[in-house]
Amino acid sequence: MSSQSINPRIGQAFGPEFSDTSIAETQAILAQAKIGFEAWSTAPIRKRAETLNAIADALDLNSEVLVEIADLETGLGVPRLTGEVGRTSFQIREFAKAINAGRFVTPEIDAAVDAAVPVGHPELIRALSPIGIVVVFGANNFPFAFSVLGGDSASALAAGCAVIAKAHPSHPQTSTRVFEIAAKALADHGFPSGVFSLIYGVEAGVVALKSELVSAGAFTGSRNGGRALFDIAQSRENPIPFYGELGSVNPVVALASGLEDPKTFAASYLDSLLLGNGQFCTNPSILFVPTGSPAISEIESQIAERSPSPFLSPSTKSTHDANRTKLSKILGSQPVKGKSVQGEGLFSAPAIIESTVAQVASNVEALATECFGPTGLVITYSSLPELLSVIDQLEGALAGAVFASADDADAVAVCRAIAQKVGRLAWNSWPTGVAVSIGQQHGGPYPASTSSIHTSVGLHAITRFLRPVSYQSLPKEIAAQLI
Amino acid sequence: MSSQSINPRIGQAFGPEFSDTSIAETQAILAQAKIGFEAWSTAPIRKRAETLNAIADALDLNSEVLVEIADLETGLGVPRLTGEVGRTSFQIREFAKAINAGRFVTPEIDAAVDAAVPVGHPELIRALSPIGIVVVFGANNFPFAFSVLGGDSASALAAGCAVIAKAHPSHPQTSTRVFEIAAKALADHGFPSGVFSLIYGVEAGVVALKSELVSAGAFTGSRNGGRALFDIAQSRENPIPFYGELGSVNPVVALASGLEDPKTFAASYLDSLLLGNGQFCTNPSILFVPTGSPAISEIESQIAERSPSPFLSPSTKSTHDANRTKLSKILGSQPVKGKSVQGEGLFSAPAIIESTVAQVASNVEALATECFGPTGLVITYSSLPELLSVIDQLEGALAGAVFASADDADAVAVCRAIAQKVGRLAWNSWPTGVAVSIGQQHGGPYPASTSSIHTSVGLHAITRFLRPVSYQSLPKEIAAQLI
Repeated sequence: MSSQSINPRIGQAFGPEFSDTSIAETQAILAQAKIGFEAWSTAPIRKRAETLNAIADALDLNSEVLVEIADLETGLGVPRLTGEVGRTSFQIREFAKAINAGRFVTPEIDAAVDAAVPVGHPELIRALSPIGIVVVFGANNFPFAFSVLGGDSASALAAGCAVIAKAHPSHPQTSTRVFEIAAKALADHGFPSGVFSLIYGVEAGVVALKSELVSAGAFTGSRNGGRALFDIAQSRENPIPFYGELGSVNPVVALASGLEDPKTFAASYLDSLLLGNGQFCTNPSILFVPTGSPAISEIESQIAERSPSPFLSPSTKSTHDANRTKLSKILGSQPVKGKSVQGEGLFSAPAIIESTVAQVASNVEALATECFGPTGLVITYSSLPELLSVIDQLEGALAGAVFASADDADAVAVCRAIAQKVGRLAWNSWPTGVAVSIGQQHGGPYPASTSSIHTSVGLHAITRFLRPVSYQSLPKEIAAQLI
Repeated sequence: MSSQSINPRIGQAFGPEFSDTSIAETQAILAQAKIGFEAWSTAPIRKRAETLNAIADALDLNSEVLVEIADLETGLGVPRLTGEVGRTSFQIREFAKAINAGRFVTPEIDAAVDAAVPVGHPELIRALSPIGIVVVFGANNFPFAFSVLGGDSASALAAGCAVIAKAHPSHPQTSTRVFEIAAKALADHGFPSGVFSLIYGVEAGVVALKSELVSAGAFTGSRNGGRALFDIAQSRENPIPFYGELGSVNPVVALASGLEDPKTFAASYLDSLLLGNGQFCTNPSILFVPTGSPAISEIESQIAERSPSPFLSPSTKSTHDANRTKLSKILGSQPVKGKSVQGEGLFSAPAIIESTVAQVASNVEALATECFGPTGLVITYSSLPELLSVIDQLEGALAGAVFASADDADAVAVCRAIAQKVGRLAWNSWPTGVAVSIGQQHGGPYPASTSSIHTSVGLHAITRFLRPVSYQSLPKEIAAQLI
């Protein structure tokens, strides 16, 4: 098996073919990773941070050529991709800064207490150690920020783990180039090649995930793919943590008090819905508006003027189209469409599908159908109890939003209901746009994530790869060399 | 199905029969737990802490009668059980104190940054919310500290979760009495019964663990039982975190420099090995000593003088006896035994089984065989490389120990090797004795735990049940009511 880039704007393959990594090659890479882990995990934090900063600098230096390749492979456009490289290097530097400042990695010293048990105890130093070798499965929709050197790899490397990244088949050239940049910076800093490796193909990824040498997995992508890998990680003889950020149907509720300017509201909704052709895990998949709201006709008339952007890959388009058709059929509602594009490119017209709480309540599958593309489900509700009851039927999601005025008497109840279902609740703002920051939570109840208590974006992401070890009564001279 | 207490000292059943909770009853309890969760999770932290303290006070007040029942059911003895009640109430108060002080539960405020992305971002308040309803499966060897109101329940309740505890069939009377004490304190503080529930029987536990209403599971017990429940939790349509603290074969290494007083060393080893009849998850299962060390003959002569204590249950004894026989057969080494007890009680003579690194290296199953009783494996090594290579073959463990002098040139390498395998490394002290403290880590790589990055003892245990939710740009008046 092999993969080759496809230009989504014209639907044509181009560039070299990338052969899948064989089982033997994967095993050699795993053996190298063990050596890499030993070197990287025992390197001083300062050296680790310095190397991460060098990787970030090298990414920035190569931004132009990286963006050019990625644009041909993904069709996401130069401005967006340039911003994404900046976000990716920023993310790496933020992790480097955090560990350099001792954040997350400073041992917690619990001094001995001289008293009878249960109060008394010996000295305990709780140190956070890198968990081991991590396999990272990147996403197709962020060829930089959630791919080879994205948040999963950056946080795992910052934690002191070795990383084996699987290249996404929809951007193999970008993956390879990014990997080479990082590999060179690591080698320049004297680290062995096993600190960071790249593999190609599903089989190689599965072999790595099943390996006894591997201690954790991380994934961003579809629900089906993520669940399959999660099941592999959990059914190992020794299960390992698998941090999957899977699909998400993100709910947005507009109360009447949040809809005072229907025109602006409709425009900002469509901006968020159609950003990156709707291929965002934080896409505002379901919008709840009051029955009879003027926002609905505004959305209908504005979407007619919206043009499509290309899909990332043929399979992304075909899955989206199938899900849109399914949603339309389940709810018995024809899509209200925007403009089309003719030709061989990977395009579908933007669309919304309208329904009511009564309809979806008897077709709950609709609430769990992620289109991952330029399709929004707009659901009208007629009362607060009806709204709260349908929110209770939602699956877990990465993000949700509430539009209301702060003095709306219903706002708290609606926020509380949404917060039960999501990892992030945005107020009077759309769920797209995930800041890389200490307060970020990008992860929600399943199926949004396989571990709702962790985040894959923001500094807390590093805790996924740190394993606490308590050292009891260790002499100072040993502690100095060990911790 | 039903369960009845057995007095281990005489091997005879006594007291009432406890019928297993039926499926219908379990479903009613789950529905109550949903109501309980709503009340408990939204109660002010101060009220939650006050109620936890009242539960702790009630436990202490009833200590004498609780210990009397538990001693008849477990044979662990009045002094140990009295200490354990104190540890259990202390643990509950420590969690109450932590949340009252805002520890773990204070939201992290990440102020808005007015700059271009990726640096700029809206305000994010990262709050830790209770994950939901938690099912707790207690252990047989700690009828208080790791059972109905043990560390799992205490940390889940402190986090704001509702708890459904499954009674352990080897101490149903103790479980019921402890539950009643907690239930009364909760009712006295105005909380509905669903905050804390008790169920009986494996089937009821499985029904609860599979329920859509449940968000996490916690378990302390055997590897087989824990793995079966872990698999159920992970193969749900929506997998949930399952924190299993399973079996552990804990390695202790004595370097020659740590054996200068073989007599005292042997005595302290046997004290730790035979504490609670060896039925501790931190039992020093495997002791590595240098070939020809005088400690070996000391251990042999001292164990001859040691008397057995009763097993917790008939199945604990039969499993132990079968594993001792298996270990002896695998290694071709007859146990060196202590004293026996005649009669119907659940006793086996204490014993050690001696072997060498060369022998176990070709029979690695021996390194993974937990006897969970008064049996120690003593392995001699002839060189540092041989020792390090056998440590590399060990499975994950809860705790390990190294005995050496601080200026021993080999000590750091040995500590580093052991630390890779364990959650806690004790220096010149035995692994038994797990302090309830902020620096504690009670959890190691599988099979010690199903989640090596979490602890089941100490204050950090609460993080298992807290799910981060980020609130973006929330107005102050809404935040005040919501977070």
